[in-house]
Amino acid sequence: MARSSSTKQPQSPSRTGSFVELKRPERLVKLLHRLLQTGQHRKIESILARLHPADIADILMLMPIPDTRELIRLLFRLRKGAATVAELPPVYMAELLEDFEPAMIAEFVRRIDPDDAADILQDLPDEKQHQVLQALEIDEVEELRQLLAYAEDTVGSIMNPDVFALPANLTVDEAIRKIRAEGEHLRNVVDVYVVDEEQQLVGVVSMRDLLLAPDEATLESIARPVSVTLTPEMSEDDAASVIARYDLFAVPVVDANEKLVGVVTVDDIVDVLTDAATEEIYSMAALDEDDRVFSPPLRSVRLRLPWLTLNFATALLAAFTVGLFEDVISQAVVLAAMMPIVAGMGGNSGSQTLTVMIRGIALGELKPVNARKALMKEVAVGLVNGIILAGIGFVIGWLWQDAWWLGLLLGLGILVNLVLAALAGALIPLTLKRLGLDPALGSTIILTTVTDVCGFFAFLGLARILLPLFGVLPHTS
Amino acid sequence: MARSSSTKQPQSPSRTGSFVELKRPERLVKLLHRLLQTGQHRKIESILARLHPADIADILMLMPIPDTRELIRLLFRLRKGAATVAELPPVYMAELLEDFEPAMIAEFVRRIDPDDAADILQDLPDEKQHQVLQALEIDEVEELRQLLAYAEDTVGSIMNPDVFALPANLTVDEAIRKIRAEGEHLRNVVDVYVVDEEQQLVGVVSMRDLLLAPDEATLESIARPVSVTLTPEMSEDDAASVIARYDLFAVPVVDANEKLVGVVTVDDIVDVLTDAATEEIYSMAALDEDDRVFSPPLRSVRLRLPWLTLNFATALLAAFTVGLFEDVISQAVVLAAMMPIVAGMGGNSGSQTLTVMIRGIALGELKPVNARKALMKEVAVGLVNGIILAGIGFVIGWLWQDAWWLGLLLGLGILVNLVLAALAGALIPLTLKRLGLDPALGSTIILTTVTDVCGFFAFLGLARILLPLFGVLPHTS
Repeated sequence: MARSSSTKQPQSPSRTGSFVELKRPERLVKLLHRLLQTGQHRKIESILARLHPADIADILMLMPIPDTRELIRLLFRLRKGAATVAELPPVYMAELLEDFEPAMIAEFVRRIDPDDAADILQDLPDEKQHQVLQALEIDEVEELRQLLAYAEDTVGSIMNPDVFALPANLTVDEAIRKIRAEGEHLRNVVDVYVVDEEQQLVGVVSMRDLLLAPDEATLESIARPVSVTLTPEMSEDDAASVIARYDLFAVPVVDANEKLVGVVTVDDIVDVLTDAATEEIYSMAALDEDDRVFSPPLRSVRLRLPWLTLNFATALLAAFTVGLFEDVISQAVVLAAMMPIVAGMGGNSGSQTLTVMIRGIALGELKPVNARKALMKEVAVGLVNGIILAGIGFVIGWLWQDAWWLGLLLGLGILVNLVLAALAGALIPLTLKRLGLDPALGSTIILTTVTDVCGFFAFLGLARILLPLFGVLPHTS
Repeated sequence: MARSSSTKQPQSPSRTGSFVELKRPERLVKLLHRLLQTGQHRKIESILARLHPADIADILMLMPIPDTRELIRLLFRLRKGAATVAELPPVYMAELLEDFEPAMIAEFVRRIDPDDAADILQDLPDEKQHQVLQALEIDEVEELRQLLAYAEDTVGSIMNPDVFALPANLTVDEAIRKIRAEGEHLRNVVDVYVVDEEQQLVGVVSMRDLLLAPDEATLESIARPVSVTLTPEMSEDDAASVIARYDLFAVPVVDANEKLVGVVTVDDIVDVLTDAATEEIYSMAALDEDDRVFSPPLRSVRLRLPWLTLNFATALLAAFTVGLFEDVISQAVVLAAMMPIVAGMGGNSGSQTLTVMIRGIALGELKPVNARKALMKEVAVGLVNGIILAGIGFVIGWLWQDAWWLGLLLGLGILVNLVLAALAGALIPLTLKRLGLDPALGSTIILTTVTDVCGFFAFLGLARILLPLFGVLPHTS
């Protein structure tokens, strides 16, 4: 989530005040609850006035919803409500705002960055969104509608359209006077974008450049070329990787006609990167990104159940595989006890491979061009780990029932399953990626199915072949 | 990894040149290989001159080591070698540099930010590190030794000690003249820190503040208070969460005497956040963070094997559990086929809970104060999912062998295991966290052990109790 520019400078006067306060939020929650119940609004206001919106947002999330709503009304009087609400996760934001009058939400929307405002509007029910837009001025609505038109997760949806730009033919002196006129509003502006008459981007001038240049120079003459630009249609993840890669603080956004339409700053990117990490971790475990710690339980059920049902179908494959070998198991029931070892070792070692591959893809270290090398490496690791663990398995299996053939079967089962697990762990994300899907998507469920099915098939299949040869079981027809 | 300040502005002259080039790195790798073999160094230089160090680093990682070393020597002549090496993951850096003469490494070290230099030195073998330090000037060594003294993963290890500070009694006019004198070196400086005679931090003045203030004002009079400072001993993760939380671009670092000793910028934090995500994902899969896609296979074996051996020990618990019920299995072998369904469903639904909890802790949404609420929610989700999936299990088990008792057992096994899995998935990270450990540490291995053991115990235990009651099996003594 992008943040309002008005929140960029912590407002606490003490040097580390807002940060220290965070360590005991639960105390503050109790105190505020008591003050709310006794109606001591003055006292609450003086506490909230000293806190950073991000810290207040944290406290709001720990409070019961009615307390939260009351506090937001108070914050609104302190002119801090909008910035605070912008700090809340979208899920909470929508839940909280639904209860407020459209006029009040409109006032919120007016006070925060347009990109945050668009985020909030997007999460409101359609009717409420419509009412809020009606309560706004026409030009405000125009800007918001444009932002709302950009697809989620695009640069357009995270950029700030309020970008500070000056005409190329302005002199440094004139530019400085323009900046003085803007005053406080530009508190966090570092770079000034230079545009021609068509609003096309010509270059960039930093505040420091202005400071060092002669008064009469034109902006055009001192502007540096902009080496990286974004387009509103680009995905926010691509924008994040460019900004992280080149260590940029701000990147201008231009449309198809090279017109300057917005700016993306690195603090927005920090949020995008955090979201991307969540998505990656969630995908592996077959979770939807809306499924958070405090999502309503029934929403979590609805989001998780389809995956678990799919998991049921794949688990049937494993059951079916074991079912094929009921004859062998009935003759040597100890095999049933060994099955979870073979499957579990394969699952966990395969998940190591899977994780390394998925993270390598996300970090950009693993690409189609070197995928084969990565696959070979993982198989080699699976083979070496497999040989060592098979040795341990041999000893344990032998000791378990004083039967060397059980040791041999367990060792072989582990070895085969670890190599197969390495192959599966590497091929699942590479295949998903090649299919244009998220390489982490439900990968753990796919992996454990493969390692269960292959593990059982290898272990029990070897038992059926070898045990008669060893004379442990009679030959079947 | 922090980056050299000289890399902060992409050097490609074309607007999106360096970014577009990235899309076909494999072509460039082949071209450069051919040019290297035919000794066309001039041509290589002209290609490299147009690329951003981050892009060159990408290409280096795709090349065979000998090519890479030769390219770095060429880059060194282009004065781009240092910045490029600083962009490589530390593992590659150390591997590449080991081969170079100490004098050349010293030259590298001199050209990049001290924090990057310290990182590189830290990864070199002790003897080589010593040789490089000997090849440097005394004052350079002093600064590096101080940085090397800070523990890894602390603010001290990522901060840039070359922070631009000016005395509080300077006038704006004098300050501007000082900044002019520094010129290009300050290309990326946005804020000027203001210090007193003891180098203690008094406040901060932005370039824009200087631009707007009267010439004769003192810096002290226009400085704004600094609301957040870091200490060198603070963990880099804490620093990252402060900077991300308050949307800061740069935060000064002060020592115990409030003396200004460095600065941490948001681009360093972007790297810290990426590393933190890797660590979290890796911890869950019982992986060490040095275990990357292209780590040497034997290193990966060494890093993964201890965890898999532990996994072997825990898998024995599951095997032992099943072993307790060999009598029941031998009388109804179909139970062996159903075991993986019960265990697998528990494992995957537990891993959903586990992931939500671990991510909630990492994002700061889940705290000790609301842990109980999260636990209750997960158990509720497990119960509802369990009831629905138990219903499906009942039907499938019944149809499997036209035996209603099998359906009942499978359904009950799934229901019990899903609730236990929710409990385990929630309690494992909360317990690890309370013990002061990484809440993700090997959590998947612990979880699957719990769901296997509990799943088998519940399913087979229910079979032993219920089947005689149903008259399916004879009562045991």
